[in-house]
Amino acid sequence: MATQKLNVAMIGSGFIGKVHSNAFRQVGHFFDLPYALTLSVICGRNRSKLEAAATQWGWEEAETDWRALIDRKDLDVIDIAVPNALHAPIAIAAAEAGKTVLCEKPLATSLEEAERMAAAVRNLPNLVWFNYRRIPAVVFAKQLVEEGRLGQPFHYRGLYLNQSGNDPSKASGWRYKASEAGMGAAGDLLSHSIDLALYLNGPIVELSAMTHTFAPGRDVDDAAMLMARFANGSIGSFEVSRYGVGNQNRNDFEMNGSQGMLRFRLDEMNRLGFYDATEVANLRGVREITVTGPNHPYWENFWKPGHALGYEHPFIATLGDFLNSMARRETFHPNFEDALAVQRVLDALERSASSRSWVTMPPSAE
Amino acid sequence: MATQKLNVAMIGSGFIGKVHSNAFRQVGHFFDLPYALTLSVICGRNRSKLEAAATQWGWEEAETDWRALIDRKDLDVIDIAVPNALHAPIAIAAAEAGKTVLCEKPLATSLEEAERMAAAVRNLPNLVWFNYRRIPAVVFAKQLVEEGRLGQPFHYRGLYLNQSGNDPSKASGWRYKASEAGMGAAGDLLSHSIDLALYLNGPIVELSAMTHTFAPGRDVDDAAMLMARFANGSIGSFEVSRYGVGNQNRNDFEMNGSQGMLRFRLDEMNRLGFYDATEVANLRGVREITVTGPNHPYWENFWKPGHALGYEHPFIATLGDFLNSMARRETFHPNFEDALAVQRVLDALERSASSRSWVTMPPSAE
Amino acid sequence: MATQKLNVAMIGSGFIGKVHSNAFRQVGHFFDLPYALTLSVICGRNRSKLEAAATQWGWEEAETDWRALIDRKDLDVIDIAVPNALHAPIAIAAAEAGKTVLCEKPLATSLEEAERMAAAVRNLPNLVWFNYRRIPAVVFAKQLVEEGRLGQPFHYRGLYLNQSGNDPSKASGWRYKASEAGMGAAGDLLSHSIDLALYLNGPIVELSAMTHTFAPGRDVDDAAMLMARFANGSIGSFEVSRYGVGNQNRNDFEMNGSQGMLRFRLDEMNRLGFYDATEVANLRGVREITVTGPNHPYWENFWKPGHALGYEHPFIATLGDFLNSMARRETFHPNFEDALAVQRVLDALERSASSRSWVTMPPSAE
Amino acid sequence: MATQKLNVAMIGSGFIGKVHSNAFRQVGHFFDLPYALTLSVICGRNRSKLEAAATQWGWEEAETDWRALIDRKDLDVIDIAVPNALHAPIAIAAAEAGKTVLCEKPLATSLEEAERMAAAVRNLPNLVWFNYRRIPAVVFAKQLVEEGRLGQPFHYRGLYLNQSGNDPSKASGWRYKASEAGMGAAGDLLSHSIDLALYLNGPIVELSAMTHTFAPGRDVDDAAMLMARFANGSIGSFEVSRYGVGNQNRNDFEMNGSQGMLRFRLDEMNRLGFYDATEVANLRGVREITVTGPNHPYWENFWKPGHALGYEHPFIATLGDFLNSMARRETFHPNFEDALAVQRVLDALERSASSRSWVTMPPSAE
Repeated sequence: MATQKLNVAMIGSGFIGKVHSNAFRQVGHFFDLPYALTLSVICGRNRSKLEAAATQWGWEEAETDWRALIDRKDLDVIDIAVPNALHAPIAIAAAEAGKTVLCEKPLATSLEEAERMAAAVRNLPNLVWFNYRRIPAVVFAKQLVEEGRLGQPFHYRGLYLNQSGNDPSKASGWRYKASEAGMGAAGDLLSHSIDLALYLNGPIVELSAMTHTFAPGRDVDDAAMLMARFANGSIGSFEVSRYGVGNQNRNDFEMNGSQGMLRFRLDEMNRLGFYDATEVANLRGVREITVTGPNHPYWENFWKPGHALGYEHPFIATLGDFLNSMARRETFHPNFEDALAVQRVLDALERSASSRSWVTMPPSAE
Repeated sequence: MATQKLNVAMIGSGFIGKVHSNAFRQVGHFFDLPYALTLSVICGRNRSKLEAAATQWGWEEAETDWRALIDRKDLDVIDIAVPNALHAPIAIAAAEAGKTVLCEKPLATSLEEAERMAAAVRNLPNLVWFNYRRIPAVVFAKQLVEEGRLGQPFHYRGLYLNQSGNDPSKASGWRYKASEAGMGAAGDLLSHSIDLALYLNGPIVELSAMTHTFAPGRDVDDAAMLMARFANGSIGSFEVSRYGVGNQNRNDFEMNGSQGMLRFRLDEMNRLGFYDATEVANLRGVREITVTGPNHPYWENFWKPGHALGYEHPFIATLGDFLNSMARRETFHPNFEDALAVQRVLDALERSASSRSWVTMPPSAE
Repeated sequence: MATQKLNVAMIGSGFIGKVHSNAFRQVGHFFDLPYALTLSVICGRNRSKLEAAATQWGWEEAETDWRALIDRKDLDVIDIAVPNALHAPIAIAAAEAGKTVLCEKPLATSLEEAERMAAAVRNLPNLVWFNYRRIPAVVFAKQLVEEGRLGQPFHYRGLYLNQSGNDPSKASGWRYKASEAGMGAAGDLLSHSIDLALYLNGPIVELSAMTHTFAPGRDVDDAAMLMARFANGSIGSFEVSRYGVGNQNRNDFEMNGSQGMLRFRLDEMNRLGFYDATEVANLRGVREITVTGPNHPYWENFWKPGHALGYEHPFIATLGDFLNSMARRETFHPNFEDALAVQRVLDALERSASSRSWVTMPPSAE
Repeated sequence: MATQKLNVAMIGSGFIGKVHSNAFRQVGHFFDLPYALTLSVICGRNRSKLEAAATQWGWEEAETDWRALIDRKDLDVIDIAVPNALHAPIAIAAAEAGKTVLCEKPLATSLEEAERMAAAVRNLPNLVWFNYRRIPAVVFAKQLVEEGRLGQPFHYRGLYLNQSGNDPSKASGWRYKASEAGMGAAGDLLSHSIDLALYLNGPIVELSAMTHTFAPGRDVDDAAMLMARFANGSIGSFEVSRYGVGNQNRNDFEMNGSQGMLRFRLDEMNRLGFYDATEVANLRGVREITVTGPNHPYWENFWKPGHALGYEHPFIATLGDFLNSMARRETFHPNFEDALAVQRVLDALERSASSRSWVTMPPSAE
C-alpha cells in the first residue's frame, strides 16, 4: 500500500525521543500505511549520545543543528521532541519551510507562542503528541459518550499525580525551570488531563484555579487545582501535582451523567469502568471492561483480546492515524489547534491563579 | 407481632458466643419476629468469665453445667457455641428433650456423629450457623443462579485461607486438636466453602482430595485441596489453609457458566462480581454490584443502600429467617441435614486423602 | 462498672434515629461503660411510626413534642436526630436546661446558629455525630499522621459522591430544601469530608469554592468544589456531589507527604492504604492494611481480626468514647466546637461561591 | 557492540509469529546485542498471507517449505512458531543441522517427543518461549524468593483461565485437536503455570490430577486441576480452563510462606503483590508494587518508572537475554530442558487423570 516516500527528521534524543523513534519504527508493523517512512535524521545537542541513538533505532544520519534540517528539501516531516521552549522556533521555522510538523506537548511555553505556532501550521498536516487520547479505553470512552450513554453530563473529574518533585534526583531538570518549560506540573501533566477533558467533554467556559510551588526558589508550579464550568452544562474539577507521593504516574478521569458513569485510570490502562444507570437497579455496578477487543478501538492492529498494551502503543496509534488522515487530506486530531485550546486553558489557569479570581474563556474559534 | 415467648439458653462463652449473643439481642431490631425472645441462660465452664458475659449481654442466668439446662421445661431453645466435640452430646440430649436446637458449624467431629445428630433433630426446628449463606451478596448470587443467569454450569471454585496456623499465639487452642475439633482447617474453614458450594451449585458426586499438616506433631490437617464433580455437570476445585500467609480471613468463590460468571470475596463482603456473557461483546466486563439495595436481600432490614454491613449481620439474618420459618412450621436452611451433607463431603475428603484415591459420594437422601 | 444512671431522650425517628437507637442499645455490649443507660423517650412527629420504633428498639416512652422533654428533670441526655433546621432550637433549649447534648451533623443551617449552639453547650458534655472519624481505619490514619509517618504535608484530597440527586424518588425530601437543611450536598456530605480534613490535617487558612445546582428551582447546592490552603503548608482539594452517578456513598480521602501517603475509601471501610516512601525503592507500593486488628483501634471492642465492621460500628465507638470521656470529665471530640469549625468552612465556602473570590478563614479560637 | 551476524528463519505466520517478528525487530532497540540479527526468511503454508507478513515485518524472503530451510548454510537460527505437532520434526531436523533452535510452548505433544527434542538440542543454544517468565514482576518475584523473603514455603497456587472454549468462533482451530495440539487447555495454558511454578518454587515430587472436556466429541481437555507436592515441602494447587467465562486471559499465582506472600495477576502485569509477615503487626498488608522501576528487572531497557509494559515486552526480554547468554556461551533458561520438565508434569497429569490416582514424578535429571 505504501508508495509515496516520507523522510522524517526527529529533533530530540531524550526519553521521549526514544518513544517517538519506537513509534516511527513500529507504525508500519501495526498499521497499513499510505507512505513509506524513512528515518532520515535524528538531531540533538550531544553528538555521542546522538550517534548511539541513531545506531540503536536506525536513523540514517545524526545532526546537531536543528536549523540545518529546515532547509533540506529531502526532509518531509519534522518531529519535535525537545524541551518546551524550543517548540515554537522549530515548529514555526519548519512550517515556513512547508514541512509536516509533529510536536510534543505542551505545545508552547505561552499562549502567544501557541497562537503563532497554530497559525504557522494551519495549512499543513500537523499533530501534537497528546498520546493518551489514543489509549483504546479512552477512544472507547469517547465512543460511549458520543452514543449518549452518559445522558445529561454532570461532572468531569481529572487527576494527574506523580511524585517526581519529591525526588531530589529528578527535580533539577529542564522541566523545573520556567525558561525552558514555561509551566511546571500544569504544563507537563495537567495539559494531558485538559486535553482529555476537551476531547471527551467539550469546551470549558470559565474556571478558577490555584497553583502552588513547594520547592523554595523554584519558578514553576509544582501543583495546581482548577474548578471549571463546561459548555455542556457540566462542572469539572482538576488537580495535578508532582508531589503526589505514592502515585508514580496516575492519570485518572471520571465522568458522571444522568444515565451513567465512565472511569479511567492510567494505572490500569487496558480497562474502562462503565456504570449503566439505565439497568435494573439491583444489577447496577461499575463494570470493568478490558478494552483489548473484540470490537474495541485498535483491537485488530495490535495483539489479541486479553493481551495488554503498554505505554508506547497509543503513540503508534496516533502516528498510524495521522499518516492515514494525511493521505486522505483530512484534518487530524489532536493537532496544533487542539493543543492551542489546551494552552488557552493553561493560560487562563495562570491568570486565575495569579489574580485569585474566575476567568472566562474566550469563545472558541470554531 | 411477637406474642409467643421463647426462652433461649446458649452454651458457650467464647468469641462465637459473643457473636450469637449479639444476634439474639439484635434480631428483633431488624426483623419482625413472631416470638418474644428471652435471653434466659448463658452456660460455660468459667464462672467469672460467664458472669461478665451475662452482664454484658443481658443473659438472665449463668450456668456452668450444660446438662442442667436440658431438663428445664422453661427453656425452649438450646444454642450450641462450644468446641466441636461437644456438639453431638449436647444437640442429641437437647433434641431428646424436645428443644429447638441451634448449632455451630462444623456440625460434628465425624460423619457418624453428624448422622445421629441429624436423626435426633429431624422433627424439631433446627439450624446450623453457616453464617456466610446469608450475606446479602451470597443470597443474591443464589437468586441469579436460580434465574439461570449463568447458563450451563462449568466451574465452581472455592478458596478459604487464613494464617492462624502460622501464628504461634493462636495455634495451640482446641481447633488444633483432633479430640476437640475433629478436623483442622477442613472442618473449621472448608466446611463454609462446601456449604456455599452445595447451596449455590448443588450436590457433589465424586471427589479426590489431599490434606497436609505443616506443624510437626499436630493431629489435624492444616490445609486441604479437593477436586470435585458436581451433579449438574460442572467441576469444582477447593482449597483451604491455615497457612495462607497474607490472607486474614479470605473466603472467595467463583462460578463460571456458559452465560456468565459470579465472583464473591469475603474481604469485600458487600459486593458481588457479575459478568454477563450475553451482553454485546464490547461492553462485557465484571461488574461489581454493591449488594446493599435497592431490591437486594435484606436491604430493608438493615441500613440504607450504600451503607456497609459487617461480619455480624448474616448471623442476625440467619436467626431472623429461622424464627419466622419456625413460626410458619417450614423447614429452615441451613439445618442439620444441610450440615450433614457438608459432613459427608468432609468425610469423603478424609477418606480420599488417606486412601489417595477418588471417592464417590453416596446418593443424597433427597 | 456502670453505676451512675443516665436517661436518654432521642428526638428523631427516621433512618438516622434507627442508627442512634442501635448505638444506644449496642454500646454497652462492646464498651465498658461508666453509666447505666436507659432509653427513656423517643420523640417524633408521627405517633404511630414513633410507637413502632419505641417497641422495636425498646424506648420506654414515645413523645411527639420535643419541648416537653426539655423540662423533665429525669432526662439527662438529649440526642438530636432531626432535620438540620431544628438542631439549634433543640440544642440551645436542652443546653439551657443543663442537659448533655448530642447532635447530628451538620451542626446548623448557618454559622450564626452554630456559634450560638457552641456557646450554649460550652460547659456541658456534648458531641456531634461525625461518625466517620471513628472508623478504625480513620483513627489509625490519624495515629500514623501523628507519628509523623507522612513527613512534610503536601496534599489533602477529599471526595464525597452519591447519586441521590439523580434519583427522582429521593430528591424531594427535607435535605433538598434550604429552609430545613440550610445547605445541600455541602452540608449533608461535604461536612463529613471537612471534618475529617480538619481532624487529620489541621485548620484551613483560606479557600476558594464554587457550588452548583443541577435541578431547576432547587434552592440548595447539588455539588460543590473547594480549593484550600491549610495552616500546615499543604493544599487541599474537595469535591462533593449528589449527582456523582455510579457512586452510591463514596467518601474518599488521600494525603500525600514527603515520606508517605494515606488513602481511605469508605467503600472499603475496613482498609487503609499506606505508602511508605522511606522504604527501599524497589519495594515501595501502596499496602492495603485491613484495620481490624491486631493492635488497631477498637480491635478488642468488636470482632476478631479479619472480621468486617459495618456502617454502625463507628457510631457505637463514638458513643462509647463519649460516655467514658464524660465520666472522666474530659473534652470529647468531635464536639460542638469541632462542628462549628466545620460550619465556618461551609460558611466560607458559601461566601466564596457567591462572591466568586477567595475567602480567608478567621483565625481559630484555639 | 553487535558484530557477528545471525540470520534468522521463522516458521509460522499466525498470531504468535507476529509476536516473534516483533521481538526480532524490537530486541535491538532495547538491548545491547552481541549479534547483528537479519530477518532472513519467514516460512508458512499460505503464500499470500506469508508475503504480506514478510512485507509488514521486513523478512527478506518468504518460503513455504520448512524443510528447505534446514539445509541452508546461511541460516543460523530456526524459530518455531507453528502448531505443536510440528515442533518435534522441525526442532530435531534443525538441531541435527546444527542450528540454534527457538521453539514455542508447549514443547511437544508427548513426553517422548519432548525427550527426543531436548536430547537433540543439548549441545546447541536453545530457547522455549515461556514468555511470562520474563515479565518484570515475575522476575522480581523470583528475586524476592531467592532472597528468602517468603521464609519456609507453604503454598503455591496457579490459576489460568480463559473463555475461548465457550466461544463457537474460536473452538474449532488446531488448538482443539489432539492430533495437532497434543493436549488442550493443559498444554496451551497450564504449561505456562507449571513453568512459572517450577521456576519460582522448584520441582514437583508427586501429583494428582483430573481433566475434563465440556464439548461433546472433542478429544482434548478443556479444563484440568492438579494437586501437587513440591520438593521444598510446600503444596500446590493448579487449575486451568478454557471455560472460565468472565476471564479473558487470567494467569494468576500466589505463594505463601512463613515470612510472606507474593501474588501476581497477569491482568495487572506491571504489578506484584507482596505481603511481609515480618513487619510490625498493625502495618502489615499486601502492597502492590509497580514493577517498572526504579531498580526493577528490565527497568532500564524499556520505558521510565510508572510507564506500563504490555504483552510483547517479555518476548523481547527473553530474546535479548538469550542472545547475550548465547554470546557468553552460557546456558539460557527457559530452554528445552526446562520445557521438558514442564512436559513431564503434563504427562504425569494425563496419567494421573486417566488412572485416577497419584503419580510420583521421576527424580529430575539435575
